[in-house]
Amino acid sequence: MPRYVLAQINTTVGALESNAEKILAALEDAASLKPDLVIFPEMTLAGYPPEDLLLKPGFYRAAADVMAELTPKIKIPSLVGYPSRTQSGEHHNTAALIADGQVVTTYNKCLLPNYAVFDEKRYFKEGQTALNIETGATKTGVVICEDAWEDYGPSADSAAAGAQVIACLSASPFHHGKEESRFDTFKRLCSKNNVYFLYCNLVGGQDELIFDGASFVMSPTGEILTKAKSFEEELLVFDLPEQEKRPAKSPSRPVKNIRMQFTEESKPAIEIKPAVEKHPLADVYGGLVLGVRDYVRKNGFTGVIIGLSGGIDSALTAAIAVDALGSENVFGVTMPSRYSSGETKDDARILAENLGIRFETLPIEAPFAEFNKLLTPIYKDADPKKDPENLTDQNIQARIRAVYLMALSNKYGLLLLNTSNKSESAVGYGTLYGDMAGGYAAIKDVLKTDVWKLSYYVNELHGREVIPVSTIVRVPSAELREDQEDRQSLPDYPVLDPILELFVEQDLTYPEIIERGHDAETVRKIIRMVDRSEFKRRQSVIGPRVTPKAFGKDRRLPLTNRFIQK
Amino acid sequence: MPRYVLAQINTTVGALESNAEKILAALEDAASLKPDLVIFPEMTLAGYPPEDLLLKPGFYRAAADVMAELTPKIKIPSLVGYPSRTQSGEHHNTAALIADGQVVTTYNKCLLPNYAVFDEKRYFKEGQTALNIETGATKTGVVICEDAWEDYGPSADSAAAGAQVIACLSASPFHHGKEESRFDTFKRLCSKNNVYFLYCNLVGGQDELIFDGASFVMSPTGEILTKAKSFEEELLVFDLPEQEKRPAKSPSRPVKNIRMQFTEESKPAIEIKPAVEKHPLADVYGGLVLGVRDYVRKNGFTGVIIGLSGGIDSALTAAIAVDALGSENVFGVTMPSRYSSGETKDDARILAENLGIRFETLPIEAPFAEFNKLLTPIYKDADPKKDPENLTDQNIQARIRAVYLMALSNKYGLLLLNTSNKSESAVGYGTLYGDMAGGYAAIKDVLKTDVWKLSYYVNELHGREVIPVSTIVRVPSAELREDQEDRQSLPDYPVLDPILELFVEQDLTYPEIIERGHDAETVRKIIRMVDRSEFKRRQSVIGPRVTPKAFGKDRRLPLTNRFIQK
Repeated sequence: MPRYVLAQINTTVGALESNAEKILAALEDAASLKPDLVIFPEMTLAGYPPEDLLLKPGFYRAAADVMAELTPKIKIPSLVGYPSRTQSGEHHNTAALIADGQVVTTYNKCLLPNYAVFDEKRYFKEGQTALNIETGATKTGVVICEDAWEDYGPSADSAAAGAQVIACLSASPFHHGKEESRFDTFKRLCSKNNVYFLYCNLVGGQDELIFDGASFVMSPTGEILTKAKSFEEELLVFDLPEQEKRPAKSPSRPVKNIRMQFTEESKPAIEIKPAVEKHPLADVYGGLVLGVRDYVRKNGFTGVIIGLSGGIDSALTAAIAVDALGSENVFGVTMPSRYSSGETKDDARILAENLGIRFETLPIEAPFAEFNKLLTPIYKDADPKKDPENLTDQNIQARIRAVYLMALSNKYGLLLLNTSNKSESAVGYGTLYGDMAGGYAAIKDVLKTDVWKLSYYVNELHGREVIPVSTIVRVPSAELREDQEDRQSLPDYPVLDPILELFVEQDLTYPEIIERGHDAETVRKIIRMVDRSEFKRRQSVIGPRVTPKAFGKDRRLPLTNRFIQK
Repeated sequence: MPRYVLAQINTTVGALESNAEKILAALEDAASLKPDLVIFPEMTLAGYPPEDLLLKPGFYRAAADVMAELTPKIKIPSLVGYPSRTQSGEHHNTAALIADGQVVTTYNKCLLPNYAVFDEKRYFKEGQTALNIETGATKTGVVICEDAWEDYGPSADSAAAGAQVIACLSASPFHHGKEESRFDTFKRLCSKNNVYFLYCNLVGGQDELIFDGASFVMSPTGEILTKAKSFEEELLVFDLPEQEKRPAKSPSRPVKNIRMQFTEESKPAIEIKPAVEKHPLADVYGGLVLGVRDYVRKNGFTGVIIGLSGGIDSALTAAIAVDALGSENVFGVTMPSRYSSGETKDDARILAENLGIRFETLPIEAPFAEFNKLLTPIYKDADPKKDPENLTDQNIQARIRAVYLMALSNKYGLLLLNTSNKSESAVGYGTLYGDMAGGYAAIKDVLKTDVWKLSYYVNELHGREVIPVSTIVRVPSAELREDQEDRQSLPDYPVLDPILELFVEQDLTYPEIIERGHDAETVRKIIRMVDRSEFKRRQSVIGPRVTPKAFGKDRRLPLTNRFIQK
């Protein structure tokens, strides 16, 4: 019976040649397993998502050229994804079945997602035909990602035409809880169509998206038979049990049937590892670490610089960076002001020691005094009502820190990791060109209450106090004026975060949120803060998406927007 | 015969109630003209484009509520656009025909644009039915924007079902040359279908989009019979000549036919003004002025602050701001460094005097010295190869200026107008959190060579030297190090700009650009600079789009991107 290998590899967007090399390397690794069919992730050659590279005619030509070089080198039957262009100029999200150095046939994705982070109708035309690969009594249907998420998709057509197995090339982005929703969806698909489901997912970070891999094989009854690791490359092997030929019913799409001979070589035995119980936050943390590692490495950086305030956000960010890149590639800078407490200064230093990273101190008082001396005369005509809380001064301090960090980033060639969390980004509690500066924001999509949980998890994971517990339990403060605490400007985070979840991630309206038992005045205030800070988020740095709705491609709101939630 | 009024109004995204008031005010103004049918722009009630507000169920409910309040107040037959939700939860881009205080019927947009700056398939389902309004011998087809841009659109169905007139609710964004492409497209539509075409376009700025209005009526032979102003609100009146009933052929879509009685009141005579010949840059300049005015006013600001370097970009930006907001609402600040020449310092002051704006001087030397004193010891371990040209120091200076400008923006409650042009944004010749800071970038989509042309145009328009000619003719320099000139880092702008036009706006490949006669090495260098500075543009400020492809929603490239143009 056929042996399948799911080649869960980490490709890079646009890196056509090196992705082709990765495909060949994976096939070389797989060769000793004697697979009959190797399945790669969606858009294997191009990386995913290539976004507007897909509007460039030159990108399709380049992909075609690299495919032409790659094909003769592929002997084992393989499903490889790439962007294709027909002679009449139609663009498709395509999988090629390659065997013995030749393209046997191609399949075009039928269902194109155009919601949430996806824009595939901007680029592609829908495919119209399902595909089955027939080998002896076995038929293997071929689909691409979204194709498998809908009941009326081509999987149903392949099954109707007799397929017992569906092979899926996928690039399905991670968020917390995504694995469960995949299992639910594909369990329905398997049982409805009485098929095995081979799900090969992309692994790797691409800008704000994290592809978690976690490829698997599901039985017709919805059981996970074998599963690859999350956030790492892996070859997952599956031997299909003996199948009986199925009578073909009439599918709703045409189904192309390709007959192939699979090898009848004897195969080495494989070991199926049992699934291990995971910490509930392990996936989110793993996603954040992969996000940082891949953004840094794929963009040609070796290390990062981080401003360490002694607070929890920068502490967690630094821990993620060390787990992603190693302590030798992380540079911590603390930049105390006259408002910094002794405790936060100590905590910043202790954290750096715990992590074993380079640590420097740059007080901001001197440039702050200089700015104020020069600016004060120009303030003379300002209406005091325009800035009653003197946010001007708070912002200047935050911006001096950005000048320091960016100077060191330039001088040392390090990427500045931003430390903003999702709660403060949501309500606009941050300074543009100040603490909002940076090249990548490691915890951008993590609510403050989850920042705390993840910090405890970091200590648990490392079996020691990496992040000082004093940092975790301290009342949050920006330390930009005397005795400042976040809760003077914002609701307490345990009040704020659940409302943000309902409003931002679930798009509920004001009355719906109230109905869930939240205080009306607080909800109104928070919604107003979120709506009014869109202009800050538009200029904010990207970071990894780990929830169903991040501030990024998921949420495209106008800046000029006078809609008031009622 | 029926009299039509095209109500070219300036709505605001999300401002449902005040847009409804604007509709009523326009109808009140139109009443004395005794119109039989008033046509409003697309999405009249919601503004356009509402983007992800269209994913909020609460937005549809709110729109339905405001429509329910508005409808009884509309007596004159009117076509009003709004976002609608069916009972089964489908969303449509809809026009209601309202008369005598009641919705007579509705029409759903059939063709949904999902390219360039448009994402309508993210939000809406396609309509399936065309609509004709029958009054005596006249049938008026109703379509919405994109519907009229395609030959197979519902205009053809309406015409096949006997319409002699097509009324189009539109929100078609401006770019240089757009008017000609509209005329060409609609001329084909008119002659092919033998119809009059009533094109009511939105006017106003919405984030990066400028809707120019310029509504018109076209005859079946493609002649412009009457045309509204660009960039201003206007009621455009058109009396249809006597029509004969046409035999209905079979349309490809079903066509709903609504019989209505138009008033037979006698109508006051109207005057058709002849078209005036315009300066070739008048439209671009008008668009930039409207962009600034609408962004500032619709976001609740009264004035702007601008850093005046004595260079051409800030000079043009300041001139636009004064034309948009009046000199009393523009605050200029010059921030000389040790590298600023006497000439640029003089030019900044002279410009401010010419424009009659407030002007302050804030030298950057003192904070720069302070930063360097503190940072120098931390630079000690840096590899000198990481920053051979000492960009670090240049960036610090640019960022000190941003600290100044943002402090005054905060203190005075003014929007910081950014002064970057498209050429420098394209090649990444700018400092993040420095000269790239701001709330709106007035000339973001203007290439440097056009900045020069527009500067001469400003002086011509005002009939005096507003922008000092010495500023226009000076060799461009960032003045961030001794004897610096832009052309030390970049090709001369007359070489750079045409290549940017081909690569950025037309998406041509490297060989295609060479074929047009450009130097291969220069083209390769420029393409690399454009590709490598995407991360800067992702954090850049929005500004008005005046070309067919701006750096914004038009061009969605990944940051992590290793594709190399060959």
